[in-house]
Amino acid sequence: MTDSAQVVTQRIEMLAQISEEEGKLTRTFGSPAMRRANELVGSWMREAGMAVRSDAIGNLIGQYPAALPDGKILLLGSHLDTVRDAGKFDGPLGVLVAIACVQHLHDAQRRLPFAIEVIGFADEEGVRFQSTYLGSRVLAGTFNSTDLKRTDAQGITLAEAIREFGGNPDGIASAKLDAGRLLGYLEVHIEQGPVLEEKKLAVGVVSAIAGQTRVRIGIKGQAGHAGTVPMRQRRDALCAAAEFVLAVESLAQNRGGLVATVGELTALPGASNVIPGEAQLTLDLRHPDDVVRKRAGAELEARGNEIAAERGVTAAWELAQEAAAVVCNRQLTLLLEHTAKRHQKEAPLLASGAGHDAAAMSAICPVAMLFVRCQNGISHHPAESATEADVRVALAVMKDFILELAKSG
Amino acid sequence: MTDSAQVVTQRIEMLAQISEEEGKLTRTFGSPAMRRANELVGSWMREAGMAVRSDAIGNLIGQYPAALPDGKILLLGSHLDTVRDAGKFDGPLGVLVAIACVQHLHDAQRRLPFAIEVIGFADEEGVRFQSTYLGSRVLAGTFNSTDLKRTDAQGITLAEAIREFGGNPDGIASAKLDAGRLLGYLEVHIEQGPVLEEKKLAVGVVSAIAGQTRVRIGIKGQAGHAGTVPMRQRRDALCAAAEFVLAVESLAQNRGGLVATVGELTALPGASNVIPGEAQLTLDLRHPDDVVRKRAGAELEARGNEIAAERGVTAAWELAQEAAAVVCNRQLTLLLEHTAKRHQKEAPLLASGAGHDAAAMSAICPVAMLFVRCQNGISHHPAESATEADVRVALAVMKDFILELAKSG
Repeated sequence: MTDSAQVVTQRIEMLAQISEEEGKLTRTFGSPAMRRANELVGSWMREAGMAVRSDAIGNLIGQYPAALPDGKILLLGSHLDTVRDAGKFDGPLGVLVAIACVQHLHDAQRRLPFAIEVIGFADEEGVRFQSTYLGSRVLAGTFNSTDLKRTDAQGITLAEAIREFGGNPDGIASAKLDAGRLLGYLEVHIEQGPVLEEKKLAVGVVSAIAGQTRVRIGIKGQAGHAGTVPMRQRRDALCAAAEFVLAVESLAQNRGGLVATVGELTALPGASNVIPGEAQLTLDLRHPDDVVRKRAGAELEARGNEIAAERGVTAAWELAQEAAAVVCNRQLTLLLEHTAKRHQKEAPLLASGAGHDAAAMSAICPVAMLFVRCQNGISHHPAESATEADVRVALAVMKDFILELAKSG
Repeated sequence: MTDSAQVVTQRIEMLAQISEEEGKLTRTFGSPAMRRANELVGSWMREAGMAVRSDAIGNLIGQYPAALPDGKILLLGSHLDTVRDAGKFDGPLGVLVAIACVQHLHDAQRRLPFAIEVIGFADEEGVRFQSTYLGSRVLAGTFNSTDLKRTDAQGITLAEAIREFGGNPDGIASAKLDAGRLLGYLEVHIEQGPVLEEKKLAVGVVSAIAGQTRVRIGIKGQAGHAGTVPMRQRRDALCAAAEFVLAVESLAQNRGGLVATVGELTALPGASNVIPGEAQLTLDLRHPDDVVRKRAGAELEARGNEIAAERGVTAAWELAQEAAAVVCNRQLTLLLEHTAKRHQKEAPLLASGAGHDAAAMSAICPVAMLFVRCQNGISHHPAESATEADVRVALAVMKDFILELAKSG
């Protein structure tokens, strides 16, 4: 008898060979590598008894029929595109675990009261068109048609790329799934963080996908000669920025579940013998509860203004992006916790700080997510890794989840 | 009767037109603009009764003879080269005020017990060859002959540039002045800082030229996903850098006369959604007392290591440059204070945070410096400005200084 977890990890290695860049894994929307990946994954779907189709934007969908023609549909999946120089697990893991679960049903010649559709989303990372969730937003009916005019680095529009890939830009509106038929969407994904590793647990249940605020902050003080301007006469923009960076860290450390990051900081003019007259920085703020996130944002803006006023500099606050949190469906999540507890001593609830297709899919159906432990918390990097043993646990939990859902349905 | 201060400011405007870049003032070592400037300044020297020569590296020297052939020599001057897109006063002011003083003696047909040599140094800013004090080090005998192999951005060596300018690289060693004949060196210079403006005084007497420490600091933590790594599990290199920046500021604020600047700070990888795994920064530390500067450097290094240890990151400290402080000659400085007090209500003693030719000249003779108030403390910028009224005070002080020295000598 084949070991499903071993099959999944072998297939992850095979998919990792399908790249548009030599020596590293890069698979962006509409690329020849993406086509080859879809062909290979499609062949595995068919092997598992699924009917395979590709939708208007190029999402790969395998359908395992219900016992009766009018059954509802349970969606499983994740994305098949990657970032540049990616890890192997981010995306493919969720698609391959889902296919392996269907394979079990198929091998047992078992049909459920509902159909299962396994989706390999065409674009979650948004590398080529600087977009978010192109694939899942088409199925959820939230695709913004003005995005079709977005261009990649070569000036090719998204509409052209879709056609080139064999999709149909004009069919996107009608590619939306029928919400009335959907039971929900379950996604398995690598955690991309260190929490499960610290807890020594293979899997965790996602409670919510954090909302996010991105801000650009510009601080203006007064440049000057590093040797001739006395300390008390300085209006050093970098010192103000440093005080703000520590205020961000301190607030987040004292607010459970909040993560706050200054990822970019530039001091201008940027010479060792010149007092910085300007500092530009970014703030990334995430929390599963939008109220907490927004309050933290307002507090940090106020604190930034306070620091600026105390130092005789100015701080400009520009909201660059804001996304609401998505709370996972309570019923599906309880079921997932229940089945996870069969396979490990506890089923911790984690908020996801990163975005996932489940966030987009929540617009059309209830969603749930299962995280798999990630070695050293490293993701978006070739060193990204999950063990076969943990994949085995994820598989068992998803399989049980499906069967429990079949009982209750 | 001509107004000497008006002549000086007019000449400053004329020199400001002599540039190698259109629309801005840039005059670097050995350039055609430098040659034209030397020719013009040389003509003013001759007008003031001086015999003009150019030395092996291209310093312009005008000699006003002593009453008797064996008299000693008082050196006056500053530099005629500029930074890129420079202000008009930094350098030329000191040369032109000196020439105006000699003009007074010449107009009065007065000879002193000592000769006066007015020097227009060929290179103080070091823009073209990334050097320091090329001109004054030749006269002080501290020129490093390996510097002749330095190349400019076009690959031209300093030796070639000297020849092209009409100098003689082989004559540099013998261009050293005869220390036994020198009474001292007095330099008038724009303050380049805001202290005199704050004190509402035209001129100030320099007590010392600060010593300087330049350090490069590399902090290494752990990069990670801004959404998925909880605050308590982070090793954020930028947060450590921010804490260090504030420690630098705080220490300098509490240590009189110390200036400390972090002018460059780079966070890596530098993406808004990635926790900085690395931060690179520079530290510039200056104080007129080397003991104070070195103690501050050691304390900051220790504090940096403490911060790093507390945060689980590493900090590498690399000393990039170190220059000792130069204390101005007590006797000349007392005389300068004395004469300055004749022309304004007090003669404040200031340390110079910037370097000057006087620092190099201190290797061969006693030095003194007089600072002139600088509008808004701005220097190395086209907005650099000093008023004609302040130039008039500087002129009067220098003239009296020379006459007092003649009495005492």
